[in-house]
This record gives sequence, structure tokens and C-alpha cells, in this order.
Amino acid sequence: MAVDEREIVAFARRYDPQLFHVDPEAAERSAFGGLVASGWHTTAMMMRMLVDHFLSPASSLGSPGVDEIRWLLPVRPGDVLSLRATVAEARPSRRRPDRGTVHARVETVNQDGRVVMTVNLMFLARRREAGAQPGA
Amino acid sequence: MAVDEREIVAFARRYDPQLFHVDPEAAERSAFGGLVASGWHTTAMMMRMLVDHFLSPASSLGSPGVDEIRWLLPVRPGDVLSLRATVAEARPSRRRPDRGTVHARVETVNQDGRVVMTVNLMFLARRREAGAQPGA
Repeated sequence: MAVDEREIVAFARRYDPQLFHVDPEAAERSAFGGLVASGWHTTAMMMRMLVDHFLSPASSLGSPGVDEIRWLLPVRPGDVLSLRATVAEARPSRRRPDRGTVHARVETVNQDGRVVMTVNLMFLARRREAGAQPGA
Repeated sequence: MAVDEREIVAFARRYDPQLFHVDPEAAERSAFGGLVASGWHTTAMMMRMLVDHFLSPASSLGSPGVDEIRWLLPVRPGDVLSLRATVAEARPSRRRPDRGTVHARVETVNQDGRVVMTVNLMFLARRREAGAQPGA
């Protein structure tokens, strides 16, 4: 997913209007040395990639929360992000056996192969009926 | 901060296009019983309120991460959100004594006084020089 300067600025004007996210000149003089995406913009882009490539529309029931986010490296205009998602745990609900909670470790990686963000995210998901075959 | 249906849909079309965030009719038939904001939209709105009312532009150096997010209740069109932010810990950096890390517990509350989301967020902040007076 390509990171666009106009989108960095538009997102941050609305949701995170700190100078290093909205003002390229001020950002040059900041500790970041240039414009960087809001960390919340990076989580939002991660979510888009998860919805497109990882979550099933048939089973996704939303998310109860996140156990950790680490913003490790700046995300800059022109970066191209991709994901590595690993399921750490998938546990049936005790009260609602038709659903369960999936714990996923998601690494967001830039075009140089460097991990810019890690997120440990939970999802609620519908379960197949016990004994059902994949695709049934 | 007022939650607008068009903004819920616009945010989610770009970043979290699950049916219960982008399609009011499909959302009615979902477990949510109506359109709900993406949790990432709620974190983004929280950030805007933190930037407007909590973070100092003179000292904010960005955030290394989040230790926990819990999406407790749905956020719906017409809700009005506000924050309660509590500093849990503020610790000088060992390597860079001119800065430190602040751990804040942020509760996002709706118009009924119910907590819809909790976030444990870290901030990097510049420190006043040792011995400097407030406002000096």
C-alpha cells in the first residue's frame, strides 16, 4: 500500500494535527527530519490491508481490542507498506461456542523490508459448526 | 467531539471497509444492529482530542506505542465523545535526560457518560531544564 503525502497531511489535519504530520517545512526542522505519517494513520492503513487480505467478511465480528502497538520507524511519503500477519492463538468462546477470539501478531513492513510497526490485535470471528468441513 | 455518519462511512471506506462500518442497511442486520464507527476511527478521534487539549506542541515528540486498547461499546452516528486522560507515569529517559516517556490512561466517554474505549498510550516529551520554573 503506497503512502501518499497528501493523504498523510489530510489524515493528520483531521485527526493528529501535530506539525511533523501536517507541515512539511516544520517537519524538516523536527526530530523526524521530514514529514511522517501519524501512527494512527499507519494503524488505519494496516487495517485496510487486513480487511482486503486477511479477514473473512463471512466470519469477522469486529475486534475487542489491541494488546500492543509499537511504532518502530517513521512512515514517510513514498513508502510502500505490506503486512506479515501471524495467528498466535485462536480460542473458542466459552459462553458462545459459535464464535471465538483470534490473537494475531501483525508486522507492517516497508519497501526496504524493515518493520515499521508491530500490532498485537484481537478479532472476534464466527466458527464453522463443529464437524463442518472447510468450504462446507 | 460529535460523531458524524458521513465521516464514519468515509473513514471506513478508505481504512476499514467492513459492512457494519460502511453500509447502514447491512449494519442493521449485523450483530451491531446499526452502523458503528471503526475502532480505528475512534482512536483517531481520541488522538484529535488529545492534540487539541492534552499534548503540548512545545514538548510533544511523538509516541513510541500503545500498551492496550479496549473497544468496549459501539460508537454510533450522533454520539458525542469526550476524554478523561490520567498520567500513570512520567519517567525521564536514561540516555537522553532532556526527554522522557509519559504513560497516559485515556478513557473515551460518550454523551451518556459510558466509557466506549480505553487506551494506554505512551508519549515522548521534552523536559524542562532541571530547576526551570513552570512557564520560564
